[in-house]
Amino acid sequence: MSVSLGELAVRFGCELRGDPGTRIERVGTLAHAQAGALAFLANPKYRSQLSGTTAAAVVLTAAAAEACPTAMLVCENPYATYARIAQLLNPPPAFEPGVHPSAVLSPGARIDPSACIGALAFIGEDAQVGARAFIGPHSVLLAGVRIGEDVRLVARVTLGAGTVVGARSVLHPGVVLGADGFGFAPERGTWVKVPQVGVVRLGADVEVGANTTIDRGAIEDTVIEDDVKLDNLVQVGHNVRIGAHTVIAGCTGISGSTTIGRRCMIGGACGIGGHISIADDVVVTGFSAIANSITKPGLYSSTLPVEEARAWRRLQANFKRSGLLAARVRRLEQASGIKSEQEPGDE
Amino acid sequence: MSVSLGELAVRFGCELRGDPGTRIERVGTLAHAQAGALAFLANPKYRSQLSGTTAAAVVLTAAAAEACPTAMLVCENPYATYARIAQLLNPPPAFEPGVHPSAVLSPGARIDPSACIGALAFIGEDAQVGARAFIGPHSVLLAGVRIGEDVRLVARVTLGAGTVVGARSVLHPGVVLGADGFGFAPERGTWVKVPQVGVVRLGADVEVGANTTIDRGAIEDTVIEDDVKLDNLVQVGHNVRIGAHTVIAGCTGISGSTTIGRRCMIGGACGIGGHISIADDVVVTGFSAIANSITKPGLYSSTLPVEEARAWRRLQANFKRSGLLAARVRRLEQASGIKSEQEPGDE
Amino acid sequence: MSVSLGELAVRFGCELRGDPGTRIERVGTLAHAQAGALAFLANPKYRSQLSGTTAAAVVLTAAAAEACPTAMLVCENPYATYARIAQLLNPPPAFEPGVHPSAVLSPGARIDPSACIGALAFIGEDAQVGARAFIGPHSVLLAGVRIGEDVRLVARVTLGAGTVVGARSVLHPGVVLGADGFGFAPERGTWVKVPQVGVVRLGADVEVGANTTIDRGAIEDTVIEDDVKLDNLVQVGHNVRIGAHTVIAGCTGISGSTTIGRRCMIGGACGIGGHISIADDVVVTGFSAIANSITKPGLYSSTLPVEEARAWRRLQANFKRSGLLAARVRRLEQASGIKSEQEPGDE
Repeated sequence: MSVSLGELAVRFGCELRGDPGTRIERVGTLAHAQAGALAFLANPKYRSQLSGTTAAAVVLTAAAAEACPTAMLVCENPYATYARIAQLLNPPPAFEPGVHPSAVLSPGARIDPSACIGALAFIGEDAQVGARAFIGPHSVLLAGVRIGEDVRLVARVTLGAGTVVGARSVLHPGVVLGADGFGFAPERGTWVKVPQVGVVRLGADVEVGANTTIDRGAIEDTVIEDDVKLDNLVQVGHNVRIGAHTVIAGCTGISGSTTIGRRCMIGGACGIGGHISIADDVVVTGFSAIANSITKPGLYSSTLPVEEARAWRRLQANFKRSGLLAARVRRLEQASGIKSEQEPGDE
Repeated sequence: MSVSLGELAVRFGCELRGDPGTRIERVGTLAHAQAGALAFLANPKYRSQLSGTTAAAVVLTAAAAEACPTAMLVCENPYATYARIAQLLNPPPAFEPGVHPSAVLSPGARIDPSACIGALAFIGEDAQVGARAFIGPHSVLLAGVRIGEDVRLVARVTLGAGTVVGARSVLHPGVVLGADGFGFAPERGTWVKVPQVGVVRLGADVEVGANTTIDRGAIEDTVIEDDVKLDNLVQVGHNVRIGAHTVIAGCTGISGSTTIGRRCMIGGACGIGGHISIADDVVVTGFSAIANSITKPGLYSSTLPVEEARAWRRLQANFKRSGLLAARVRRLEQASGIKSEQEPGDE
Repeated sequence: MSVSLGELAVRFGCELRGDPGTRIERVGTLAHAQAGALAFLANPKYRSQLSGTTAAAVVLTAAAAEACPTAMLVCENPYATYARIAQLLNPPPAFEPGVHPSAVLSPGARIDPSACIGALAFIGEDAQVGARAFIGPHSVLLAGVRIGEDVRLVARVTLGAGTVVGARSVLHPGVVLGADGFGFAPERGTWVKVPQVGVVRLGADVEVGANTTIDRGAIEDTVIEDDVKLDNLVQVGHNVRIGAHTVIAGCTGISGSTTIGRRCMIGGACGIGGHISIADDVVVTGFSAIANSITKPGLYSSTLPVEEARAWRRLQANFKRSGLLAARVRRLEQASGIKSEQEPGDE
């Protein structure tokens, strides 16, 4: 695959500075681009790499153009433009429509003739696979699953009975959608399993990372709206709803019956409690605990970064003595006749 | 499936208020129940939904009965009664006994004639599968695995050599039992692998969520006792023992050689250290660190919930200056002649 | 398998005290060793078990030898010596070279004749499998994967296109290497997928635990150097580099483009931010957040262990009132004419 800079400029609406005949064959980083590579500059942190770049051309904003020693494509959103050019240069692997002879199809399964069912896949009863969908090797679609058009299950994705996947969604290996939610009723010292009768519904353009799990609803459905992006090893409990365009980084867990708004950005390794509601446009830093509802857009955090261990032990000791310190301050206030503003109940 | 309210009242020992001939066909929520649906009220938080419910009948306690506008099943434990009725209405999918032609059986494997081996499953040498067990598609049972009666591996469960699964246990897709524990001995700057020769033993009535991992023991076994329920993406290290009836929510990790008592409830996304012991009846809130043994039953926490980021930065700064604040208080105490109660070693 | 103590002493360079003809058949713990078992003492915590041990022989240091009531192998590093003896007694399961008839090989795949391809494995186009490699049942190697000599994929490992695995590495069930990194460019309220064109490269002697995921690089590669050991359910983002001999415990997540040094030891359930750098020889306690670069070797922590919940609520309340306490101290200082050392901007 090779395309000229001139073609790229026209197709993606960029201002071209440099030779329109320059051939672009691949993408590269500013620092280590190979011959024929296109790089991009979006994060100002990497601006210093511009002058020494080995790229054949760079996608950047007008503001950065002056410092660029090579051909360039100038545009307003270099990262998105880079992404679209990279898609052109690196399309997903092509596939032949049809069902691999080693795949197992159950009665009632309906596979669009333009779809591909990979090696050793299992398609359960009455499952439906839409046009141009790619069901990678070792995928398991249990009974009644519905796969939209142009969906891509890379490999070894497991979809529980009744799962619905919207058009163009991409699911990575190890994903499990539609396992039972975690519901057990206590009764005389043991647990009674609560059947989980809802399903998982994914909207269109959703991406789900490797080994991420989304449980089916207890009674109603677990719903992931359009254009949601989940990273690897994310856990989504039953009855959760995640609003459109929200992105959630790896290792974050979301307890059951919680609603997350639209356009949120949740960092990695967060813990999100159950039965709460998070507003639209909420951003949370990684390794934070969201135990209560968040009602206003904004940036939230409870990340406590590491210290050198000796310093941390002192901080921890002070933290544990904080009540004692407050008592000492109160005594000083009493001795000096200063009235404390501390609210009652303070310890 | 449809059953009359009268039958349900008799079978589950409830007091029926309303028409015993009312047909129940499904379960539903108080707020959105469809025709013929049975709902339940257990959490007082949802009591306000009772008056407007669209359910045909509601399972609830006598205390809540007065406010219920529909037929009802009155009992002491509505959630457990609801669970049992939901099980009746939603039995696990039926299966035909036998081995799917695409499954691969190794020499010495013994499959009870009433069991089902799903499509593309692999059964290793000398593995045993008990009566009425369901080994879902794509499951892998390595050599010597033993599966009890009525066990259900939903799909794509992997059991390492020698794993033992007790009767009626349910394992969800992506579960890995019996991978090697994390054991390496340092030697001159590199690591020597320590063979992990124990196995994983699950008791009866255990449930293990999607993509959860339980490692085999280093020398002795990793043991999960009866009626333990593990959510998705939980990690259980080698040599761990989890006591009967304990439940652990998603994304929690348990380091090696730790013992957790009976009837514990561990929240999601907790980190539990190695070589410690947690007493019976311990409850831990989500996103807490259990670094040391807990010797008494009770409720424990180290969850720090998010704040708006600017407020959090101030709190964090104060936390880091806590030693300085203590020093200032000491100076004030000295100046005012007040003797500090702070213990020596305070900083 | 059985070997005499005399043979073990010679082969592993230990001083033998006791009968060289003693037969060792298995390993065991000091406390519960069965007949013919060899135990070891490395952790002083278990020294009290020595006098009552049921082991036939114990591996230990000269310093501990006096208290040992049985035969013993005395050496400098008992844990590593134990590990090597345990390897001798418990070799990985033997396998027959060849391709299982149920496996699916794609055109261009090159399998060394001494390698084993297990049942129901899928080998993609142009994939290469080296000498004596074991590709366990249900493994999926997508196009162009390269597997070194003596590699062992226990079962159900998924390797994305182009993944490279170095010699002698061991990958446990559920591992996913080479899924797409988490890269999306924002554009007018939606997300544009950024193609992930790098691959994952594992060095030699790497071990990767069950259900761990390592994403392919965005442009360049994600690199795991020699002798790195990753536990279960670890997430490694795109473009990450992990230095040789580093070990990372379970449930830890590493965000994209971060570099971790050599010989680091990262505890379980940590969260490591993106685009940072961690020096060689850094040790981090479990459940810590590493949000910023660490430039010096040493021990780091931000673990806050649980307290009884009522005590924790008080600590949490004090934490949230820390700004108020500082203000009260300032007022006391002003009243008493003591000049604060607190830096400006303090709140």
